[in-house]
Amino acid sequence: MSGELRAVALGGGHGLQATLSALRRITADVTAVVTVADDGGSSGRLRRELGMLPPGDLRKALAALAGTDADGSLWATVFEHRFGGTGALAGHAVGNLVLAGLLDVLGDPVAVLDQACRLLGVRGRVLPMSTEPLDMAADVVGLDSDPDAVRTIRGQVAIASTPGRVKQVRLSANGNAEPTACPEAVQAVLDADLVLLGPGSWFTSVLPHLLVPELHEAMVTTSARRFVVLNLVPQPGETAGFSPEQHLDVLSQHAPRLRVDAVLADADSVPTPDRLRAAAAALGAQTVLDKIAAPALPGRHDPHALAASLRAALERRTDRWR
Amino acid sequence: MSGELRAVALGGGHGLQATLSALRRITADVTAVVTVADDGGSSGRLRRELGMLPPGDLRKALAALAGTDADGSLWATVFEHRFGGTGALAGHAVGNLVLAGLLDVLGDPVAVLDQACRLLGVRGRVLPMSTEPLDMAADVVGLDSDPDAVRTIRGQVAIASTPGRVKQVRLSANGNAEPTACPEAVQAVLDADLVLLGPGSWFTSVLPHLLVPELHEAMVTTSARRFVVLNLVPQPGETAGFSPEQHLDVLSQHAPRLRVDAVLADADSVPTPDRLRAAAAALGAQTVLDKIAAPALPGRHDPHALAASLRAALERRTDRWR
Repeated sequence: MSGELRAVALGGGHGLQATLSALRRITADVTAVVTVADDGGSSGRLRRELGMLPPGDLRKALAALAGTDADGSLWATVFEHRFGGTGALAGHAVGNLVLAGLLDVLGDPVAVLDQACRLLGVRGRVLPMSTEPLDMAADVVGLDSDPDAVRTIRGQVAIASTPGRVKQVRLSANGNAEPTACPEAVQAVLDADLVLLGPGSWFTSVLPHLLVPELHEAMVTTSARRFVVLNLVPQPGETAGFSPEQHLDVLSQHAPRLRVDAVLADADSVPTPDRLRAAAAALGAQTVLDKIAAPALPGRHDPHALAASLRAALERRTDRWR
Repeated sequence: MSGELRAVALGGGHGLQATLSALRRITADVTAVVTVADDGGSSGRLRRELGMLPPGDLRKALAALAGTDADGSLWATVFEHRFGGTGALAGHAVGNLVLAGLLDVLGDPVAVLDQACRLLGVRGRVLPMSTEPLDMAADVVGLDSDPDAVRTIRGQVAIASTPGRVKQVRLSANGNAEPTACPEAVQAVLDADLVLLGPGSWFTSVLPHLLVPELHEAMVTTSARRFVVLNLVPQPGETAGFSPEQHLDVLSQHAPRLRVDAVLADADSVPTPDRLRAAAAALGAQTVLDKIAAPALPGRHDPHALAASLRAALERRTDRWR
């Protein structure tokens, strides 16, 4: 593909880092659209203390797209560095504190992220899915003696680690059930040639984008090609025991109108390819099985292999549904 | 003067900010040599928590020399911004946390400051007087019923605010009575055309430089012209009730071999000019009296006026002692 492909990757955490690391090998025009519902760790502390957008997933996306020159590499390393010790700063990532400082001064999260992009020499752009911190709630079964009893679990950390079975997730912002999308993120999806959903914590990093109404609509209506990248292994907690095809079923339940062009999965991580193909076909998608797992890092995608798989999928001529 | 004048300003806090703001109007080659004995506020907390060089005075010097373009101004503002609220970060200056992060990653304080200079588009260079955090102790009288009883007061904050009369200050590093100078700071003093001492908290920001043996020696032996800039008002606490000439006496007691070319003072802040001239002459110095106080900020120098006074003093032809 040419360097002009406009690619948007939606997600959070390590999954988003993997797609960004792959996409930057394909095009210089990469936009990350990042979840902002985290309530744990350094991000959760900053969110509670300063009322700010949880910065951790944004910071990880910045680092994944950072320049490879000396300055970009150094600032990416500094951003990812966590203070040690046992004091008030212990565990805080430096980049989270820089983003907090920029946000106090500039006010606008998009301006903050554009400034951070300049500092890290980012190839592309990093945007939040919403400019407000979001709260997540999930309907979970299997937590009581009655297996059908549904409980509401609140907060990204609690949902990601629930021993129960997540049925559905919801987002809210300041108690408002309709979180507002970041307009620049919506526009990026609409203007894209390729949008990428996943991999990542399915309920807490991937699906949240579809729970922001304007972003959901942009995903449904964009003329971009839509690829879904599946996880290598089920996430302990939120998707324990989920098959690859169940991930697609859940996606479809949360976004019935969403059509998908390709579902990419690691060939060695799909026990029943026929079932996955059927689930993908129900979304309108081809299934692409390649070896895309990192040999040395269990559960992580290899950016080179994922880039090659994406490139091949993009080049494939298909008789698509539209 | 031409833009090639190599100027070094030694000090800390607001006093150093004033000389740096003045010097940057005279030359692009300004080096700040900054005290690192602070144990209060955000700096003291970071020093205790992370064992690092107290960053506050270094940060202030960076901000004073920051570029005036959009990026330099923004990062200087962010560096100086303090977190609000009542949480673990409250009161921390963002720049202190960035310097802490850089120091964790790079290890070398000089490399950290050079990197921060690039970020802020600093005109010149900022160096610590020592690469180790220093501890300050002072002999103080007047704290007991016996007016001659001498007590040792420890820590920059305690000394700066003592209600007693400071007789002498000492520095140590890790219990070692001979603190090591930052080699680049020593070299900057030796290579300079002009070195500037003061204004600032006399015992806790100005004299400490002369208590680091290698830096003291460089100040005595440099072929640079040596100017002393006096405070506008005595500092409550450490120099309460001190006359301008007493400031020079104290300087001379701490550095008997130091010769000075010019003593600059605000004309309206010198009650007995003849006494000041005599004290300056004892150091080998001319006395320069100009209006250099900021009209709107009591106790602060006006950078424009101070720059004009420095320029005039530099251009004056004198039959100097050497």
